[in-house]
Amino acid sequence: MNEELNKNEIEQYFIQLQDTICKGLETADGKGLFKEEQWQRAEGGGGRTRVITDGAVIEKGGVNFSAVWGACPEFLKKETGIPATERAGFFASGVSIVIHPKNPHVPIIHMNVRYFEAVADDVSTGKSRLFQSWFGGGIDLTPHYINQEDAIWFHATLKKICDKHSTSYYSEFSKWADEYFYLPHRSETRGIGGIFFDKLTAGKDKTMQQYFEFVKEVGGSFLTLYLPIIEKNRNKEYTDTERRWQLLRRGRYVEFNLVYDRGTKFGLLTNGRTESILISLPPYACWDYNVTPETDGEEEKTLKLLRKGINWAYINP
Amino acid sequence: MNEELNKNEIEQYFIQLQDTICKGLETADGKGLFKEEQWQRAEGGGGRTRVITDGAVIEKGGVNFSAVWGACPEFLKKETGIPATERAGFFASGVSIVIHPKNPHVPIIHMNVRYFEAVADDVSTGKSRLFQSWFGGGIDLTPHYINQEDAIWFHATLKKICDKHSTSYYSEFSKWADEYFYLPHRSETRGIGGIFFDKLTAGKDKTMQQYFEFVKEVGGSFLTLYLPIIEKNRNKEYTDTERRWQLLRRGRYVEFNLVYDRGTKFGLLTNGRTESILISLPPYACWDYNVTPETDGEEEKTLKLLRKGINWAYINP
Repeated sequence: MNEELNKNEIEQYFIQLQDTICKGLETADGKGLFKEEQWQRAEGGGGRTRVITDGAVIEKGGVNFSAVWGACPEFLKKETGIPATERAGFFASGVSIVIHPKNPHVPIIHMNVRYFEAVADDVSTGKSRLFQSWFGGGIDLTPHYINQEDAIWFHATLKKICDKHSTSYYSEFSKWADEYFYLPHRSETRGIGGIFFDKLTAGKDKTMQQYFEFVKEVGGSFLTLYLPIIEKNRNKEYTDTERRWQLLRRGRYVEFNLVYDRGTKFGLLTNGRTESILISLPPYACWDYNVTPETDGEEEKTLKLLRKGINWAYINP
Repeated sequence: MNEELNKNEIEQYFIQLQDTICKGLETADGKGLFKEEQWQRAEGGGGRTRVITDGAVIEKGGVNFSAVWGACPEFLKKETGIPATERAGFFASGVSIVIHPKNPHVPIIHMNVRYFEAVADDVSTGKSRLFQSWFGGGIDLTPHYINQEDAIWFHATLKKICDKHSTSYYSEFSKWADEYFYLPHRSETRGIGGIFFDKLTAGKDKTMQQYFEFVKEVGGSFLTLYLPIIEKNRNKEYTDTERRWQLLRRGRYVEFNLVYDRGTKFGLLTNGRTESILISLPPYACWDYNVTPETDGEEEKTLKLLRKGINWAYINP
């Protein structure tokens, strides 16, 4: 039941999603405005990279749209199981967001929604057919200082959003986020997690159209989830120590994205547009040797909560 | 002719090298002092991590010694060609240095010298035998602003040092450095290069003892190569723009170390001591979107020189 979706419709949805989110962030920020750069990919497709810097809230943020296509590279054929002898093409489109706020009490947020399909030519008939298609994505929060009330609210809201489509989604996809956003060399999660999902394809339970509706729900939840957290924390005072801690936590963000993140690695190693891929890196970051936070200080409390399996959505606020 | 060296002697040399270099750097800096941390590895061996911060010249620097040993992990057996059925052990020791200076006109320097051996038990006789042993290392310079006079002097001096041992070394190992210290996703070399060599093992030309002598020469050249460059540039004035450019170049250093550097990746993925491995990361770094330096400015001049095959040692000063 791998019914074919209209990829133009998906692409148009992602374009409109980028517009909506950028407008929402600009309004909330009140000062920063996105600058746009359109780019083309020689082999097919392109994108719109949008960057916001030096806002009232956002120090640096990127909201990227791209839709690329062309001949399936060999390694992608292998990955998707298309015989080497067949001609094959791919199409990939999505929206990707990372926001680095200025105030250490406002968390970093990341969201990604994407669609992929591979089309293969049948050797005998010479006709193209959809070989594989799937949705992937997620949304997760990385507070420099974990505010437990916010963390519970973020997860509980995310659970409600997921529950609209399937009561198993939140439990499944939040575990997936815990596993994915993890730095083994630090024994830390990147933040408080959220949801992560990949290769959702039509099966006995769900059609591609139903997954598309779910992806739209996730995309549509970005402002719902982030703006209230911005509003609540944007005017909190902070010290130099807190700012420095923020830069250290951003260092961890850099470590995750450059060492583990599959999207970043895939992009860098397949000649993607470097400036668009690395827009996720923070404006400033720092590394100190062997930082040991004060006992029972806010920094230590945060470190203790950077672990898998906390089940934020189920904690009574 | 894979004669066996005395690994205690090699280890002692590395320990003494760490001492000499730390003293030399402290004297040159005039303010910063190294702090030492000794650590043990549960599976065998350990090290001395030394960090210097907030010096007069050095903003953050690490000079690490380690000597680790134990049972050969499976992937190392595969890499060295030891049959899976044989018992095998390994020993690895070395000194590794990265110095991030405060002044953007003083370059970042990196040096590494290391020895590795694998010992396998013969299945029939039950006796241990040296299976493989080699030296590796190198030294390279990463100026934030390339001073051509310094670059030529650095390479010419390095060539003289290499020539004492073989007239082919400089040409071979400087090419190797050009290839190794390269960021494909930026189409840039990390800096002006230097020398890089790996898996130097006894053959028809050289004995292990001769390679050891060469490695000692490289280790001994660190202060000779770096201190004059510090002296020449440490008191140069710099602007906020130049400081910012330095932080951007440090961002590239982070990208190289986390995405490409084999030592860093190997360490992180094999449960090494994270704080010692990541001591190479800068105290502060930054990332801007799509930085385009002014035409004919010093920043653009530097970018144009971050490429392979410049042959600095052969340019007439």
